Amino acid sequence: MATDLFSTIGNTSLRKQLEFVVEIDKLKQIFRRNLIIDGTRRENDAEHSWHLAIMAILLQEHAKNKNFSLEKVLKMVIVHDLVEVYAGDTFAYDVAGNEDKNAREDAAAEKLFSMLPKNQGDEIRSLWKEFDEEKTPDSRYAAALDHLQPFIHNVFTDGHTWRSGNVKKEQVYQRMKIVMDELPDLKPWMEEQIESGLSKGWIH
Amino acid sequence: MATDLFSTIGNTSLRKQLEFVVEIDKLKQIFRRNLIIDGTRRENDAEHSWHLAIMAILLQEHAKNKNFSLEKVLKMVIVHDLVEVYAGDTFAYDVAGNEDKNAREDAAAEKLFSMLPKNQGDEIRSLWKEFDEEKTPDSRYAAALDHLQPFIHNVFTDGHTWRSGNVKKEQVYQRMKIVMDELPDLKPWMEEQIESGLSKGWIH
Repeated sequence: MATDLFSTIGNTSLRKQLEFVVEIDKLKQIFRRNLIIDGTRRENDAEHSWHLAIMAILLQEHAKNKNFSLEKVLKMVIVHDLVEVYAGDTFAYDVAGNEDKNAREDAAAEKLFSMLPKNQGDEIRSLWKEFDEEKTPDSRYAAALDHLQPFIHNVFTDGHTWRSGNVKKEQVYQRMKIVMDELPDLKPWMEEQIESGLSKGWIH
Repeated sequence: MATDLFSTIGNTSLRKQLEFVVEIDKLKQIFRRNLIIDGTRRENDAEHSWHLAIMAILLQEHAKNKNFSLEKVLKMVIVHDLVEVYAGDTFAYDVAGNEDKNAREDAAAEKLFSMLPKNQGDEIRSLWKEFDEEKTPDSRYAAALDHLQPFIHNVFTDGHTWRSGNVKKEQVYQRMKIVMDELPDLKPWMEEQIESGLSKGWIH
């Protein structure tokens, strides 16, 4: 990276922040398995994260547990995929890829977040860890959105990742459990779409 | 749009929200004039909005006026380009395009935001209007980020939009005034980069 373009900045904190802002631009070139809704190309992590943020704003009333901070949820969904600039995207239904996912992502987090002033690097690492553990109201709402969004994309793109990944019905139900638990208003529609995907042969 | 995929949802609010979530996926195909930092392609509005959101989190300490709500700023940058799903992107330095920009965007806002439950459509319209007017601490911080981000992209892509738009030094200084005002720590670096762009012939 041409970080020397920031070399004249004397404010160390600002210089680190701008170097980080440039480094994470790479998230725009990390492509996920799912297509965008018009079906023309795969979606990248940056636009996926934006989509989760607006969903977080819009779907609050449907959260079973409303004891979350919207600001924290927004921060979480915005940073949740940052480590993929080095670790790459791991397809949700890829069993082998998910075995070493944690190790790859921990190494990526160490490399990436240490670029920032310590307090900020620590905050983002902590948001990312909390998101990943899915234990708090904030992280459970955020994670539910993260699972719901590609489900909607699948419904609108003829089950693209279900088909390409030879995904089984039980796997979809397992992956969508957190959505059905945390956003119960969506459960009937999701069950209907899973059954429909099954009847069309998109899901095994 | 195949909105009939949501037709079985009895909860009207939820149905409208999901239809909106699908409709705004089109923002991923609205391409801006600037390139992403690796220079390989133009940036789209969705990933641009994500980038502003993380910059809003990271650069808070540099805001001259810290009397803003981060949650509101995050909402603002996430929704600020939504109307472009119908109105398209208007290049900042395009004089003719900016003459009818307001009319095109008002019509787009009416069409898009009326898809949502009224209270939510009103909230998003209000956030977008406030952003556009650049009068409050929240909107001035958000707008400064919106002007800074493509400036950084220009610096890293050999002044791509400055060159392609035959942009003059005075135009850059005018466009960057809000950044230098609201994020004064960045002013010396920006002035240095503008002079450098001038000497390299990227700026006239």
